[in-house]
Formats: sequence, C-alpha cells, structure tokens
Amino acid sequence: MIPALALCIAGAAWAASTAEQAIRAVLDAQQAAWNRGDIEGFMTGYEASDATTFVGLTVTHGYQQVLENYHHRYPGRANMGQLAFSELEVKPLGSNYAAVIGKWRLARETNAGGDTGGIFTLLLHKTARGWKIILDHTNQTG
Amino acid sequence: MIPALALCIAGAAWAASTAEQAIRAVLDAQQAAWNRGDIEGFMTGYEASDATTFVGLTVTHGYQQVLENYHHRYPGRANMGQLAFSELEVKPLGSNYAAVIGKWRLARETNAGGDTGGIFTLLLHKTARGWKIILDHTNQTG
Repeated sequence: MIPALALCIAGAAWAASTAEQAIRAVLDAQQAAWNRGDIEGFMTGYEASDATTFVGLTVTHGYQQVLENYHHRYPGRANMGQLAFSELEVKPLGSNYAAVIGKWRLARETNAGGDTGGIFTLLLHKTARGWKIILDHTNQTG
Repeated sequence: MIPALALCIAGAAWAASTAEQAIRAVLDAQQAAWNRGDIEGFMTGYEASDATTFVGLTVTHGYQQVLENYHHRYPGRANMGQLAFSELEVKPLGSNYAAVIGKWRLARETNAGGDTGGIFTLLLHKTARGWKIILDHTNQTG
C-alpha cells in the first residue's frame, strides 16, 4: 500500500505542478503577444465565451466586449508599451480551476501615457483548448 | 434513462442553487456583522487559514493579518459605517469552489471618512464549516 500511496501523492503533486506550468505558460504567451503589439494574440489567453468577465472600475461581460475595451484603451503600439507580469501566485481550486494573483507593469513613453501598473486576480478554467482565463479582476495602482 | 437523466439535471441545478443560497447567506451574515460593529463576526466569513489572501493595493496573506488590517483601517464603529453589498454574481467553479463578483458601499458620516465603495471578487471554498472566503480582491473606486 505504501508504494501505491506514494505514487498517488507523487502523481497528484505532478498534476498540480503541470497545471501550474501550463497556467504560467498561458501568462507568458500573453505577455509575449502584448509585447509584439498583438492584442488578439493576448486575448487567446481568455475563454472565448459570453461568460468571460473583466472586473476593473466596472464589470464587463463577454470576450468580445473585453477585446473591444482593450482596443479602445490601447489604441496603438505605443500605448501598449512593454508588459511585465511578476510575483505570480498560482492557487489550484480542484483540478479544473485555478486562481492566479500577480502584479503587472507597463513601461511606456511619457507621451503614450507613461509607466503604469497594478495588481490582478485571474480565474482560469481547464478547457479542451487548454487553461483559459474566465475572470480577470485587474486594478491600476500606479 | 430519460427520467433518470432529468433527475440528474434537476439534482445538479438544485445543488447549484443551494450552493448559491449558502454563499449569499455568508455575505448576508458578513453584512449584518459589520453593521452591528462586529469585525470578528464579519471575519467568520473568511477561512481561518494562513493561506487566506486579501488583494487590495497590495497582497496580504493570512487570516490573522487580514483581521488586523480591518481593525487598523476601521478603528471605531463610526469608521465602519453601514455596509451594503449589491449586484452580486455567483459563479460555481466545480462543486467545492465558487467566485462572487459584487459591489460594496459604506455609508458614513463625513467626519468618519464619508461615503465610499467599490467592487470585489471573492473566491469561496466549501469546507466542513461551510462556504468560506479564501481570497478577497477588493478595490475602492469612490
């Protein structure tokens, strides 16, 4: 029994670690897409669903509306600047959901809005197309 | 098969609805505790764990630290004012986790800080002691 139990525990730890790696890869891909000026590529990190939700100063529902808000808020390459995520904490919520807390920083020219950044909580769901963000609560703190 | 399937679907919908009712009851109890000036009572809505996390302008880890921050920020009954939650959206994340988006409003005398409010995302976990908040991302928008 002990070797089997040990295998189970190792298996569960391995699954958690793979989930965390897969989730970090989603955020790495988002950061890379943003930094080549590709908002559509950045958005593939989100679930393409009407239920996808962005919480900022208000609540926005729907992938399409979230995409439009990004285009509206970041109308050009200069406004997008260079994005960096940091201090990521990944919390598994069962095997099909996870939360990520982290910080974001945009380095920008002064005439494109200047540097800014803040803090976020993401909820991700493991779908047939991989881990996708279903809820993003982001605020700007500086 | 069809009646059994129908029962299953009805069962799942019933479970979701009971979970949502239980979660709304946690928030109702928090609001009532706050409004009688009982921060410890309000805090029973959170999981009493070192992993409990509050995201505001910074990230705070641990039930005890979150409690201390509330006491520090709301040193007296007048600073606590009257709390109202509104526009709650409950999203089940599997059967043991759920997210809640909502707005909060504090009605306060001007000399106690004045009215304020904002938006929040909560993550709750179904524990042996009922649904408990494990992560609270709250920001103040006005």
